[in-house]
Amino acid sequence: MLTQLQAAQQGQITKEMLTVATQENLPVEIIRQKVAEGTVVICANPNHKNLIVRGVGKGLTTKVNANIGTSSCYPDPTPEIAKLHAALAAGADAIMDLSTGHNIPLTRQKIIAASPVMVGTVPIYEAAVAAITKYGSVVHMQKEDFLAVIEQQALDGADFMTIHCGINFKVIDALKKSQRIMKVVSRGGSFVVAWMLYNQQENPFYQYFDDILAICHKYDVVLSLGDGLRPGCIADATDSAQIQELINLGELVLRARAKGVQVLVEGPGHVPLHQIAANVTLQKTLCHNAPFYVLGPLVTDIAPGYDHITSAIGGALAGSAGADFLCYVTPAEHLGLPDLNDVKEGVIAAKIAAHAADLAKGLPSAYARDLAMAEARNKLDWPKQISLAIDPEKAAAYRKSKNKEDEEACSMCGDYCALKIVEEQIHNLK
Amino acid sequence: MLTQLQAAQQGQITKEMLTVATQENLPVEIIRQKVAEGTVVICANPNHKNLIVRGVGKGLTTKVNANIGTSSCYPDPTPEIAKLHAALAAGADAIMDLSTGHNIPLTRQKIIAASPVMVGTVPIYEAAVAAITKYGSVVHMQKEDFLAVIEQQALDGADFMTIHCGINFKVIDALKKSQRIMKVVSRGGSFVVAWMLYNQQENPFYQYFDDILAICHKYDVVLSLGDGLRPGCIADATDSAQIQELINLGELVLRARAKGVQVLVEGPGHVPLHQIAANVTLQKTLCHNAPFYVLGPLVTDIAPGYDHITSAIGGALAGSAGADFLCYVTPAEHLGLPDLNDVKEGVIAAKIAAHAADLAKGLPSAYARDLAMAEARNKLDWPKQISLAIDPEKAAAYRKSKNKEDEEACSMCGDYCALKIVEEQIHNLK
Repeated sequence: MLTQLQAAQQGQITKEMLTVATQENLPVEIIRQKVAEGTVVICANPNHKNLIVRGVGKGLTTKVNANIGTSSCYPDPTPEIAKLHAALAAGADAIMDLSTGHNIPLTRQKIIAASPVMVGTVPIYEAAVAAITKYGSVVHMQKEDFLAVIEQQALDGADFMTIHCGINFKVIDALKKSQRIMKVVSRGGSFVVAWMLYNQQENPFYQYFDDILAICHKYDVVLSLGDGLRPGCIADATDSAQIQELINLGELVLRARAKGVQVLVEGPGHVPLHQIAANVTLQKTLCHNAPFYVLGPLVTDIAPGYDHITSAIGGALAGSAGADFLCYVTPAEHLGLPDLNDVKEGVIAAKIAAHAADLAKGLPSAYARDLAMAEARNKLDWPKQISLAIDPEKAAAYRKSKNKEDEEACSMCGDYCALKIVEEQIHNLK
Repeated sequence: MLTQLQAAQQGQITKEMLTVATQENLPVEIIRQKVAEGTVVICANPNHKNLIVRGVGKGLTTKVNANIGTSSCYPDPTPEIAKLHAALAAGADAIMDLSTGHNIPLTRQKIIAASPVMVGTVPIYEAAVAAITKYGSVVHMQKEDFLAVIEQQALDGADFMTIHCGINFKVIDALKKSQRIMKVVSRGGSFVVAWMLYNQQENPFYQYFDDILAICHKYDVVLSLGDGLRPGCIADATDSAQIQELINLGELVLRARAKGVQVLVEGPGHVPLHQIAANVTLQKTLCHNAPFYVLGPLVTDIAPGYDHITSAIGGALAGSAGADFLCYVTPAEHLGLPDLNDVKEGVIAAKIAAHAADLAKGLPSAYARDLAMAEARNKLDWPKQISLAIDPEKAAAYRKSKNKEDEEACSMCGDYCALKIVEEQIHNLK
């Protein structure tokens, strides 16, 4: 089988490229070129049967991912399916299953079966939980075990996978020399670092990278190169450990593409506002313009309970600087597993950031939507304003609760609505 | 009486400058210099008896204002006092009373009496409502009427006042030639434009600017030059009408300073992300580095119900580019008058934006707070994390609702907390 990348490189137009071209209102030949050069990826595992594919990358709308999944404290898969539907209703373009609770395979299979959007996984979670169960600790995880997990997840239809291949002893060395407050905050990263330190051996995901590529190639799984050393606080942002890993990821991008495997690169994390554009530029240069998938970034550490907002600020700015894919952060971040409402709030905030970025990127479809809203607002056309809103249900509820049914303007200005006042003098303005 | 500006220019250190120096952890001589050059203002009307002054401007922390006040639909002042307390509890640095309901003077007097932070007003609201009551329309408003309102508001203790002095026929001409979707969205701006178009006479606030300066001087009211032509949608941002008015405001800044009157400049509004830094640069150059007070800016039009988030994105970026003072926007914006919860949500979102900007501005106090949070988080010290949170109450409620009482980590990762896993191998890392 040819992957989307290989097909594109051979000049073939796939049905997935056609779908993306239609969604993005771009000529399919442009999509093919971008897939061929690796600046756009199409996550489309043939085993994900009900998938409607979407593209991620340069020139396309900024996409939003919602993380769901069980944890050891909340092992029941049922609420996770409800969260999937809440995320989809709020407009998520992708779902990642980060389950670490009981029966990880079953949860994943249910999520993939229920999801029309691309689904990502983090195989080391399942491999680590299995190693802990089987051998008592993640540090005893074996090569055969994690390769089997990756293959099983691909077989189940995972469209993209986060794998922390970029941590090697050069990165560990940078970490040792660093003044980091929070050494490792990535769950997958911590498993890899712990394994390496205990065994004093190279990162197995780095060492057996070619075996991983073979599996990704077989199922056309998009490899999402994880940033295990992403900064976990403002003080640690853009340090040598982070950038050393990014250099490694750039090398792995080329190795993946050489084997016909599509590849994304993941990024931070916690980054102060004035360092965000530099982070995007660095990723684009070091990683050969591979699509950039950022977690947040959160522009401050001090707002637990509001990290959907801290990350919407960072995500909008990252997107405007060229990031392609935003992983949502919910209000529950740093405090606990998100519930249904947290998922909705997280997706909406990330969609706002993505849309603000798309306006900055100059995407005509984004501008058209704002223009339509401005025209509806200018006409005091309330049904139209509500239908164009990012969350029509919330906008309608606010409107209803704060105004009389026949109110032409709104209760903020009431009789003194600027639009109405100027309207009365408009003949003098023309 | 000398204003703060005049005192500073004469080399005097006032008790207000000392207060600001202590708050900002800066030498008082630095504060005096900045007040003298007009890059910092101290809003301190001697008639606002219970005021604890704060400074606004270059090198200081970014301040946040919360708008409250009655409207014709909600004329009762009592809920507005409750909103004042909610805004203060959430950390507002300033309150503006935008009342247009019954008995505007009484509402204002109650708000000023109850507010330990600086209070701003918009005198044209009261003058316009009075003109409508007295003459049937704002277009019949008389010079004597609005000067009397300004004097009365100053006498009541207003610390700063928004006055839309910058609209003249050059601006109206730019507006006529523009392709604007939403001509005028500022309530005060609409009163002025309607008055000018009907009477075919110059803006009285522009024409009688010296009379206004005399009152501001007498009470050391900081003049906040309003942007009546601020863009009301993304499509209208940074257009000729907006910039023509800004040029006028720059001229008025010099006229105010020449009379010893402290002055702020107000700015947009709705601005796409990629135009925000340019807007701040323009204001700083055209307005001679007067402190910049922005409303939002909102980076998209499509999120009614979430405009605290769209404006937090824009506010953080504006602040990082040099804006000094952020006016909050609540989730109720574009839909109705905010309630108590909207006020809280709005202040918190704006405080997050201001803090993110302060990190980008390199303010040591901002960095110290993030560093303390990172250290508490790294130690899994939950009481400390909660006490350092921007909203300890919400953070504590989230933590409690999602975790068992004795949970060391949190329910997101449970047994697989990255911090705990690496901690076990930390001896190998040293």
